[in-house]
Amino acid sequence: MRMYDLIHKKRHGGELTGEEIRFFVTGYTKGDIPEYQASALTMAICFQGMTERETALLTDEMAKSGDTVDLSRFGTLSVDKHSTGGVGDKTSLILGPMVAALGGKVTKMSGRGLGHTGGTVDKLESIPGYRTTLSAEEFLEQVERVGLAIIGQSGNLAPADKKLYALRDVTATVESLPLITSSIMSKKIAAGSHNIVLDVKVGSGAFMKTREDAEKLAGEMVKIGRACGRQVSALITNMDTPLGCAVGNALEVKEAIGVLKNEISGDLREICIALAAEMAALVKNIPVEEAKVLAEQTLLDGTAFEKMKEWVEAQGGDTRVLDTPALFPTAKYQQEVISDRDGYITGMNAEEIGLISVLLGAGRASKEDVIDPAAGLMLHKKTGDRVKAGEVLCTLYTDRKAVIPDATARYLSAITLENRKPEPIPLILSAVR
Amino acid sequence: MRMYDLIHKKRHGGELTGEEIRFFVTGYTKGDIPEYQASALTMAICFQGMTERETALLTDEMAKSGDTVDLSRFGTLSVDKHSTGGVGDKTSLILGPMVAALGGKVTKMSGRGLGHTGGTVDKLESIPGYRTTLSAEEFLEQVERVGLAIIGQSGNLAPADKKLYALRDVTATVESLPLITSSIMSKKIAAGSHNIVLDVKVGSGAFMKTREDAEKLAGEMVKIGRACGRQVSALITNMDTPLGCAVGNALEVKEAIGVLKNEISGDLREICIALAAEMAALVKNIPVEEAKVLAEQTLLDGTAFEKMKEWVEAQGGDTRVLDTPALFPTAKYQQEVISDRDGYITGMNAEEIGLISVLLGAGRASKEDVIDPAAGLMLHKKTGDRVKAGEVLCTLYTDRKAVIPDATARYLSAITLENRKPEPIPLILSAVR
Repeated sequence: MRMYDLIHKKRHGGELTGEEIRFFVTGYTKGDIPEYQASALTMAICFQGMTERETALLTDEMAKSGDTVDLSRFGTLSVDKHSTGGVGDKTSLILGPMVAALGGKVTKMSGRGLGHTGGTVDKLESIPGYRTTLSAEEFLEQVERVGLAIIGQSGNLAPADKKLYALRDVTATVESLPLITSSIMSKKIAAGSHNIVLDVKVGSGAFMKTREDAEKLAGEMVKIGRACGRQVSALITNMDTPLGCAVGNALEVKEAIGVLKNEISGDLREICIALAAEMAALVKNIPVEEAKVLAEQTLLDGTAFEKMKEWVEAQGGDTRVLDTPALFPTAKYQQEVISDRDGYITGMNAEEIGLISVLLGAGRASKEDVIDPAAGLMLHKKTGDRVKAGEVLCTLYTDRKAVIPDATARYLSAITLENRKPEPIPLILSAVR
Repeated sequence: MRMYDLIHKKRHGGELTGEEIRFFVTGYTKGDIPEYQASALTMAICFQGMTERETALLTDEMAKSGDTVDLSRFGTLSVDKHSTGGVGDKTSLILGPMVAALGGKVTKMSGRGLGHTGGTVDKLESIPGYRTTLSAEEFLEQVERVGLAIIGQSGNLAPADKKLYALRDVTATVESLPLITSSIMSKKIAAGSHNIVLDVKVGSGAFMKTREDAEKLAGEMVKIGRACGRQVSALITNMDTPLGCAVGNALEVKEAIGVLKNEISGDLREICIALAAEMAALVKNIPVEEAKVLAEQTLLDGTAFEKMKEWVEAQGGDTRVLDTPALFPTAKYQQEVISDRDGYITGMNAEEIGLISVLLGAGRASKEDVIDPAAGLMLHKKTGDRVKAGEVLCTLYTDRKAVIPDATARYLSAITLENRKPEPIPLILSAVR
């Protein structure tokens, strides 16, 4: 078999066979197939697409290209969630305890953040003592006992995808429905969960800019996950504005605690209930409406918060900060950003707000950067809110005094103030089940 | 400027600017732009094409990427011919003297053969003493004095094209009108001739399989050559059958001598008059019909043959073989291939006949192979000819006794014999002027 023939076939619109896809994935992972042939193939795929069969085969081969996590001991109870990424997205911290409280076996391996979105593991490290690395046996034992573990991605999951994504990133071949689908799903399949819930974000701060594109991606991912033998459902959710009010590591953990203690309402709570319901519906094989009632109940009766304490303790974290969030580290400077005029907030540039949090110290601009757990922003006014001149729009938290003027100016530019009240956009746009 | 942005632009159908094309060609030639980005761009070009402006800019930048030959001392008299390649194509050996006899300054740098077609330089080396390497000054001085020099490609002409073609060859991106056009024309532009005549072959033995594709390519090359400031015309010629009767090095030189001595008629003579007329028409700025009469006259009055002797002598060759071709080296074995039945030849697989000549020792299967000047085939029956059982189809010339049975069997398979006389196909299909 020759890589040339695969490229030629795809260039002319042919369908690659299972054997051909295996040849490509194994050869490319080993380095036998050079980068320039892989990039020619991916560009041809961008134009010619892939059939559902090809995408499923590519996903499966990439999932098998490295380590795979064996969760068979949990039968049909293992459950994982994947979000396409968003600013201020701390849902994993809330969903995990909620679904574990309902009997799910939540196994989550999260990445670290780079660019404008922080990683779940970075957020958890603001809890003193929390261990983001567990051995495979510790991880499985904790999931068995507590129902939940969240650790950093370790091992060598889907190295073919890792290598191919890095190549696509520099050859303008990221945008491609089958390639995006196989990239995301290969990692989820390798991570082993029987049930997978996908949160596909759409909007200015998200990878998918239109609802139509997001629904297409969600539909494709659900199909491919099922073709690989998993139970999958997806929600398409709005990401025109950051989720919740906190952006930053300790700030987001505190907000998550607030939701779990049933002290905070709003968009974050709403989306957590919806996603937890999708997860519980798959795990318990019950209708989503029924699962939604159970999910909200875990917030109302405190079982989700109790589960959080159990989980954090199991992973070595100091649970005193959960009971008393004031114990979290605080930033040296807290600067309010004041509105200089009246109006309604009609838009927030979520991506820019993420970048401001990086400026304040909450994220990494490059892999080597050290994160300041206390840095970030608290948003006091969000899209749809009325603002009067002199009112506080947000508070900046940072140890870097010098960046405050720039961060303030950029925040004011990231907010659109108009005289008309904007039409509310629903948070959850649709579902694929 | 970032290569990523160029790929992205072309992927989405944008037009690259002159600055962007220069950035790509210079960066790729220097090795600053990696192969995998170049292959992504070329695959995107295969799908999105290039405008005439982009193709002209790419051609120009690739022509300027290495050495360029300065023929300005010859004003508008310098003339070059390019053929897209064919089996038994010895036209350069005949055209050169014809056009030089008419006052053209013929400057030809030819490659060596690889695969099923022999190179002009390989053919000339069967003339004892012929020097295929001249210094730049010797080359120009000879063209000045004799009107003609044919040497091997030396120097570093269009290295960007050389590098890019090697990449396209292994990434299934050879087929692309703008990329083929810029590849051929960049080398011709760098080679410096003011007038360029293109012989675009079409048929089973040629790169272009349909007349439509060949005419498109010819039209594009003429446009691009003119955009680069040259005078260009093209003939689209049939290549369903080898040109002339000789395939092999000394055999082809002998056939060329026969045409120049006005001893041979047929397809080879016809195409040489047509191509020489195109070249002379550009050089002398006269109508093609008028140039055709002049071109044929050089064969009838012996001036072309005299020019050949002058040229070969100038390049150190032994002109006695021109007067007495029997002095050329002869092969140890001469084996006739006999037809076992009656019929008309309705097709000849020109590519396969080229490969048989390689088997007999006339060509190279790999770069290191040494060519036997005496090896090859003489075809006695060609497409359209009637054949009787027992008649000789061709004669094989070789020193390799062992390959004769295989060569004989393959030759018989390469010929299609049918009961009906085939419709004659015109040799010269059309012209682009």
